[in-house]
Amino acid sequence: MKKIAILLENGFEEIEAIIPIDVLRRLDFDIVLAGKNIKITGAHNINIDADCLIDELNADNLDAIILPGGLPGSTNLRDNPKVISLVSEMHKAGKLVSAICAAPIALQKADIMKNKKCTGYPMPMLKDALKDADYTAERVETDGNIITAKGPGASFEFAVAIASYLGKKPQAHTLMKNMFQKI
Amino acid sequence: MKKIAILLENGFEEIEAIIPIDVLRRLDFDIVLAGKNIKITGAHNINIDADCLIDELNADNLDAIILPGGLPGSTNLRDNPKVISLVSEMHKAGKLVSAICAAPIALQKADIMKNKKCTGYPMPMLKDALKDADYTAERVETDGNIITAKGPGASFEFAVAIASYLGKKPQAHTLMKNMFQKI
Repeated sequence: MKKIAILLENGFEEIEAIIPIDVLRRLDFDIVLAGKNIKITGAHNINIDADCLIDELNADNLDAIILPGGLPGSTNLRDNPKVISLVSEMHKAGKLVSAICAAPIALQKADIMKNKKCTGYPMPMLKDALKDADYTAERVETDGNIITAKGPGASFEFAVAIASYLGKKPQAHTLMKNMFQKI
Repeated sequence: MKKIAILLENGFEEIEAIIPIDVLRRLDFDIVLAGKNIKITGAHNINIDADCLIDELNADNLDAIILPGGLPGSTNLRDNPKVISLVSEMHKAGKLVSAICAAPIALQKADIMKNKKCTGYPMPMLKDALKDADYTAERVETDGNIITAKGPGASFEFAVAIASYLGKKPQAHTLMKNMFQKI
């Protein structure tokens, strides 16, 4: 079972965290909620419990990491040296690194975005940070082992892209049919 | 500021709870997370903290209630007499009662659904329960002061319908444009 850690700092955007966790658990991935602390408060004051601490994570034991957006969640991720070293180690090992909304700012800090196709929330702070990257403004973008997505309304597509990258594309599409019930 | 309680039993569907909470807090509604207990575990093992207990709620102080789906969250709501009395009192007072996915089963138990246009997740258990209602299979359905929605993939539309009913339709549509970034 592939193991994915989602990195939660205070101020994380709840929708961008909960949709991937829920969707990827439905698809039988092993999802670990790794928090700055065990008790984490989202950008809209929802308190959730992490399963472990970010400080306890080891890139060797993970297949992918997910960075949700939100402010100040994204800047907190960017400013956490353990997050930056994890992003860097995962990327170097050819494992999946994914970020949504404002969180690609932490990928930039890890110096993995140069000339990479990417997307994110079109706010000046992020676009400035990504000026050496190839910002495409797509809803979801994949370049090698980096997946980025635009904002909360792209969270389902983001989860599907992660699942697809990790080998469960047909299962993810079937799940979306069930969850959306578009007949 | 209009006050909305979202009723959380163990086994609630996280996406169907978190999207309305997040969206409606962004729209400056006063959202109270009311739990069976203060610590509640969702259907996909996400632990969140409630702000108060369902048992502490008083229909006189609320403008609306939201029942998220999920199993066994929905049947737990149905089997909680305090939930059923709240649904009944809110409905009688002409206040908004809303439920998504499997949770309309609790509205049925409160005996408010006869001949009402409604929707919900198309599973036999729910369709059997709603056989005296007018099940339309729409993604979101409004009949008087009852709003129902189909499943997790209809959670954004569900939140928008609630906000619109409570007088913030233009703000909700602007917010969706920002969250979805469809240009």
